[in-house]
Amino acid sequence: MPLIRLTVPDHLPPAPVRALADAVHQALVDCCGVPVADRFILITRLAGQNMLFDPHYPNVTRSADACVVDITLLGGRTPEQKQRLYRHIAAGAQQAGLRADDVLVALSENSAIDWSLGRGLSFEAANAAHTA
Amino acid sequence: MPLIRLTVPDHLPPAPVRALADAVHQALVDCCGVPVADRFILITRLAGQNMLFDPHYPNVTRSADACVVDITLLGGRTPEQKQRLYRHIAAGAQQAGLRADDVLVALSENSAIDWSLGRGLSFEAANAAHTA
Amino acid sequence: MPLIRLTVPDHLPPAPVRALADAVHQALVDCCGVPVADRFILITRLAGQNMLFDPHYPNVTRSADACVVDITLLGGRTPEQKQRLYRHIAAGAQQAGLRADDVLVALSENSAIDWSLGRGLSFEAANAAHTA
Repeated sequence: MPLIRLTVPDHLPPAPVRALADAVHQALVDCCGVPVADRFILITRLAGQNMLFDPHYPNVTRSADACVVDITLLGGRTPEQKQRLYRHIAAGAQQAGLRADDVLVALSENSAIDWSLGRGLSFEAANAAHTA
Repeated sequence: MPLIRLTVPDHLPPAPVRALADAVHQALVDCCGVPVADRFILITRLAGQNMLFDPHYPNVTRSADACVVDITLLGGRTPEQKQRLYRHIAAGAQQAGLRADDVLVALSENSAIDWSLGRGLSFEAANAAHTA
Repeated sequence: MPLIRLTVPDHLPPAPVRALADAVHQALVDCCGVPVADRFILITRLAGQNMLFDPHYPNVTRSADACVVDITLLGGRTPEQKQRLYRHIAAGAQQAGLRADDVLVALSENSAIDWSLGRGLSFEAANAAHTA
């Protein structure tokens, strides 16, 4: 039920982009209690001229490979969980061959009732039907 | 003032995608009190490799046609309205020739002051000017 | 830390789109206390058939050039700041050669802990490290 949206420059090859996507999901599993199977990722590739980032704000050095990781997730994670999440995403990005300075993460929170994962049921109703 | 964002696989023909878009808007009208004319929809088509979804979580069977319906809307709708919204969207998707399991919906709420529908005015100011 | 997402019809030439992007960022600087260097903009171009807007709601006249400006930003701006922001964005759009009726703005708020601008650190932790 997190929905992960990656926006990446279109010159990046598929392999590091896919590795970054996998790393973001794994970080959510490891740091935020997201089930492994709860995996929903959208990847948008944009031309560099359509990604306008300050090269240094607040105190980093961004390259032309800079990516945005935008995650909509259930509210309730603690500041400590979110800080750990950022560290794990950055470590995963580096393993994917990207630079930690090139990963911007933005979280937006909503509630369980704000999700339907299919079948016309809210997530809560689907889960109740499943476990009944 | 809901802003509807559909993200669909690029192999889907235009007709079912447009029918899904219309169905989502109609569901908002029927279940959430959205005016018929209040219609703002963005449709993004992505290659299948850029839409990474678990095939079964939590208890559905997704196909390669799976779509994301992401709606930013005013806060205040009840859980019952949202559940009804999901049912209507799923029914509309089926009428569009899609499978109910292939429609993921995520809602994000904001406030009236968070919208300007044009002319440099907040929605509330525009409405006040309109009805004054 | 605002993340600005422009969605524009693909027939618009690059110059007015870039001018609109600059105007939105400048409006955030002028009206919402955003630092000049705090600049993160993603621009998505869509075919007209994938941008479905009511031509008049609530009381404007939209053309085929209508654009969506979607901003995720820290919560806490006042209604007066947001109204001023809309006026500045509309004025900037007009200077960019666009019509004020063709700019829809939607704001979504989050918190400082919801941002990492790089290096695996939350924004607050990065700032603390920077000023320590």
